[in-house]
Amino acid sequence: MSEYIDGKLLIIGGAEDKEGECKILKRFIREAGGRDSVITVLTVATELPEQVGAEYRELFEKLGGGDVQVLDVAERGGANHENIVRQLQKSSGVFFTGGDQLRITGLIGGTKLGKALHQLYERGVIIAGTSAGASVMSDTMIVGGEAGTAKKNTLTMAPGLGLLHSVVVDQHFAQRGRIGRLLTAVSQNPYVLGVGIDEDTAILVHTDGRFSVVGENTVTVVDASPTIASNVSEVSPGQALVLTPVLMHVLSEGYGFDLKRRVAHDQS
Amino acid sequence: MSEYIDGKLLIIGGAEDKEGECKILKRFIREAGGRDSVITVLTVATELPEQVGAEYRELFEKLGGGDVQVLDVAERGGANHENIVRQLQKSSGVFFTGGDQLRITGLIGGTKLGKALHQLYERGVIIAGTSAGASVMSDTMIVGGEAGTAKKNTLTMAPGLGLLHSVVVDQHFAQRGRIGRLLTAVSQNPYVLGVGIDEDTAILVHTDGRFSVVGENTVTVVDASPTIASNVSEVSPGQALVLTPVLMHVLSEGYGFDLKRRVAHDQS
Repeated sequence: MSEYIDGKLLIIGGAEDKEGECKILKRFIREAGGRDSVITVLTVATELPEQVGAEYRELFEKLGGGDVQVLDVAERGGANHENIVRQLQKSSGVFFTGGDQLRITGLIGGTKLGKALHQLYERGVIIAGTSAGASVMSDTMIVGGEAGTAKKNTLTMAPGLGLLHSVVVDQHFAQRGRIGRLLTAVSQNPYVLGVGIDEDTAILVHTDGRFSVVGENTVTVVDASPTIASNVSEVSPGQALVLTPVLMHVLSEGYGFDLKRRVAHDQS
Repeated sequence: MSEYIDGKLLIIGGAEDKEGECKILKRFIREAGGRDSVITVLTVATELPEQVGAEYRELFEKLGGGDVQVLDVAERGGANHENIVRQLQKSSGVFFTGGDQLRITGLIGGTKLGKALHQLYERGVIIAGTSAGASVMSDTMIVGGEAGTAKKNTLTMAPGLGLLHSVVVDQHFAQRGRIGRLLTAVSQNPYVLGVGIDEDTAILVHTDGRFSVVGENTVTVVDASPTIASNVSEVSPGQALVLTPVLMHVLSEGYGFDLKRRVAHDQS
């Protein structure tokens, strides 16, 4: 266990392949125990829980998962029912779908279900999430912010699930041009590493604080800890950012990153 | 004079303000000599030379320029006419409009007009360009490449005007999500610095190899010279990039950058 992580996470940048090789989803199943897995799909983020839940159930069954159950939470009361908590506790892998990250934290944060999730995680059960389900993993999460130039006014953040520490995750990263908002986020506290995950790409974070890249595109790490000059405390909301220098790492499959030492590594 | 530059350049990321404070265009006029300036607008990049030329002529006259002339080149033969060369030689400031960077190099590269432009530049006449007119400044220029993930296959490059050395410029930078293609460009030869200029933002490059930022948004410098791991020579065209670590500098007005020492500086 490291200061960054207390268990095992698979954080997916959204739009993971569901028709071809399905590399990321298959990796999730493998980490959850393959044929012996009990996979719980949590649809709390989406407003279309039946449709999205059915899609993932079918996929995980087709790709070799064991028992697959879909749990939805439509109101906080539901997240305190003993029944749903018992269902979750059976899981050997938990998967958060996309949707709205504030639905996840707003509906399960501080409930019995939320507590059970943390207990599973600390027991080593893999927790996966895609898109909104990716953003929600960290202590503080990005909930909004325009693409384009790094400017303070467009970024909004909120407390996340707190499974991954000292990191801010952004998803659909290159596809939606989000480097500016991720830089704005880390400029506010350069202790925090920014991890931007492209679509159909994921990071598998191991308990030693290292992650490996899975999938087709890139993962971009931005590290503002070496920054000497920044205007973050003095800029007015609409003003453009200054942040120099920043260390950046562009990684794809076959490479990984050590969150603690803040260096990349080859995995071959 | 430095190894980077032989004169003075104003390189604009496109979509510069033409209705409000017009900070960038006013700065160009000032550098060209203000009321005493002879400004030449070169519309060679655009397929709408009359419309674009008239727009800039009116703007530069309104904003305090001296004589403003518009020169167009529609075929290479035109760029060898003594008449157009003499017209250009009068300039105290040259402005390349947007359009297609390959029209600029394809129509004036290796002509008498091209030679006269370099002579003006070496005499200290400011050369400005926006959008395509910005890309064209460097030795090697980006002519195409998708937004999104850094992948080799989407990037196309060509020889530029060669006014700025050891640098690759990209424009409409944050607005069009171009960090991936700029990283791909510098990965091919990390000696080359990548400079991504946002819309309504410019760099004024001085003869000592320093530039200062002018305008509303940011300038992003990527420096892959410290890179230890890269897959650029081995990746197949569609494969995602690895490039780690990369130094990045996000700069806005009030800040500048020393191309030779590769460090940012405050200008206050």
